[in-house]
Amino acid sequence: MRILHTSDWHLGRQFHNVSLIDEQRKALEEIIEYIMHHDVDVLVIAGDIYDRSVPPTSAVELMNNFVNRVCGELNLPVIMIPGNHDGAERLGFGSLQMKSAGLHILSSFESMLEPITLESKVGKFDFYGIPYSDPEVVRHRFNQPVSTHDEAHELLAKCIKERFRPNHRNILICHCFVDGAMESASERPLSIGGVDRVSHEHFSDFDYVALGHLHQPQMKGKEYIRYSGSLMKYSFSEQHHRKGMTLVEFDESGQPLIEHINLTAARDMRIIEGEMEQILADGKADPLNEDFLLIRLMDQHAILNPMEKLRAVYPNVLHLEKPGMLIGVEQNMADAKLSRSELDMFKDFFTEAQGCSLSEEQGSAISNIIDQLNR
Amino acid sequence: MRILHTSDWHLGRQFHNVSLIDEQRKALEEIIEYIMHHDVDVLVIAGDIYDRSVPPTSAVELMNNFVNRVCGELNLPVIMIPGNHDGAERLGFGSLQMKSAGLHILSSFESMLEPITLESKVGKFDFYGIPYSDPEVVRHRFNQPVSTHDEAHELLAKCIKERFRPNHRNILICHCFVDGAMESASERPLSIGGVDRVSHEHFSDFDYVALGHLHQPQMKGKEYIRYSGSLMKYSFSEQHHRKGMTLVEFDESGQPLIEHINLTAARDMRIIEGEMEQILADGKADPLNEDFLLIRLMDQHAILNPMEKLRAVYPNVLHLEKPGMLIGVEQNMADAKLSRSELDMFKDFFTEAQGCSLSEEQGSAISNIIDQLNR
Repeated sequence: MRILHTSDWHLGRQFHNVSLIDEQRKALEEIIEYIMHHDVDVLVIAGDIYDRSVPPTSAVELMNNFVNRVCGELNLPVIMIPGNHDGAERLGFGSLQMKSAGLHILSSFESMLEPITLESKVGKFDFYGIPYSDPEVVRHRFNQPVSTHDEAHELLAKCIKERFRPNHRNILICHCFVDGAMESASERPLSIGGVDRVSHEHFSDFDYVALGHLHQPQMKGKEYIRYSGSLMKYSFSEQHHRKGMTLVEFDESGQPLIEHINLTAARDMRIIEGEMEQILADGKADPLNEDFLLIRLMDQHAILNPMEKLRAVYPNVLHLEKPGMLIGVEQNMADAKLSRSELDMFKDFFTEAQGCSLSEEQGSAISNIIDQLNR
Repeated sequence: MRILHTSDWHLGRQFHNVSLIDEQRKALEEIIEYIMHHDVDVLVIAGDIYDRSVPPTSAVELMNNFVNRVCGELNLPVIMIPGNHDGAERLGFGSLQMKSAGLHILSSFESMLEPITLESKVGKFDFYGIPYSDPEVVRHRFNQPVSTHDEAHELLAKCIKERFRPNHRNILICHCFVDGAMESASERPLSIGGVDRVSHEHFSDFDYVALGHLHQPQMKGKEYIRYSGSLMKYSFSEQHHRKGMTLVEFDESGQPLIEHINLTAARDMRIIEGEMEQILADGKADPLNEDFLLIRLMDQHAILNPMEKLRAVYPNVLHLEKPGMLIGVEQNMADAKLSRSELDMFKDFFTEAQGCSLSEEQGSAISNIIDQLNR
């Protein structure tokens, strides 16, 4: 039994006003390629399929094409749950009608308690999915004193564990923030103030737990309780994440073999720090110059149209920071302000605009004008 | 073969800021009741399932419950197309995966050319559905010189007719404005200036044509080319429409028997015209006082808080018109204005607010004040 575990696709996401849909399409193509050339029994998507409850039409179309390829043409079952970014009711439309075609969208508590059973040479596997829900919804629905995500997941896992059947292995799919896991900037918090943490111990009776929500691949507490991480980088804070899928293989031993499968088709997202001249020189020789970039300019003088200059070599610069301009300023804002006179700033501007320095004559002319304006 | 033809559900519609979802739920329950107690082989919905391309979550849930009951529990195939109000891509998500469960959403040109074949004692029936599309989309997709709805439908019908199979009967589902049909106020025009009309002659080779778009049940050109009309009244201009479904029965003869099935569960929508006193008196004895109402007040004097008074007996008055106040005004606006002095208007107000007329003394006091203000 080979389970391909992925999560946090965020289809339809915009980042710094740039649509990521083309990169997402490439990443989904890469998943399809992997499935076509490897032995996989089921694809699991642990929530945040879409980036918001009403995704753009292009994201719905992309997802529809994906399921048509995977469920329809490749005949691979797909099991998914809504995450905190998804609209469970919208995602769940027609889900009962899709089951017979191998597309399982577990978007309600009813569907949570009805496992999808897949058979393999090494036995029967029951897949349970907890659709993402706030503690209030769980409290109301189960009429139990639940006020935190931890209590909610303890209760939900208990309900599922009561359904366990002899000699079946049990796989859980869940979208939550398991205790102690590392966060990155692109995960929308489940709640404010730390009450969103869930102990991994509620899940230890399962044979494998396919988690979604955190964008970095990682295990939590046990080797078999894991985040696959997101489809691609969704924030510059994720620049050092290894994005991909988790392949989980069960043999007769009952111990899962776990492997990380890299996804590399989407454009990388990274940070470059340096002075303009050096960045431009490096950029001309950079084979990955189409990556999405955050550039931190370290130059200590003003530069005219820096974005335009950078995009001439790095077309996908998404954001620019100028920490160089703040050096000295942070230490003593008042001193720094005094030390850069209007004349200094004009000199920078002139050099940028004309490509040469102000002559002595020009310098004294502008100095006079500044004096007049100041008086 | 018994086909239940409906259209124009507009789930999620708001009317005068009132949600119609509860009435729509009742109407769908009535359809389910009908199906449970009658012999029906397929349900057809000829577009405008939802009122807009991104329907409210409550409408998606209502529709999901409906298909779970009808396809799931009652095991009745459902065939639908998107109308001009629907978002075809959203409605079509997962449609290939739903087919095996008997839910057929024909939302693309590919699905248009793949009929759903149903067998019956009287032979095989192929159901073709044209998803609503603007002429521009058809022109682009088929690379043909198409500029009107008529040309688009001529072409689409021709593509379908080429697929006809010997000894199969052919049913077309289509959402358009067939020539000469009557309009009402709640149908969003397909285009401006009359180029939205489609000749019924393109459809005459089909055995039955289940149309959607117009809200009044009616035939067009041939007995077997029909609009079922909308689920319920969606505009006061529809007050005299008979809302319902069209039951189409084919026996060995090949001539369809057509019957109108009334839907009456939803609150009625009607116009009441009269003077306030009479309307209130009638309302107290009106067993249908919870209908949605447009009231036309014929009183020729101002009335304080008329909506409040009317809603005390007719709780669902949605809109109020005061044609009585315009009598005379239209003939000669200047004269009418002069003839109703500030004193006259204050007298009306006082009578309404106090329940008695102004005394002579009060009258001269207010007259003085008005004189002072005018000076």
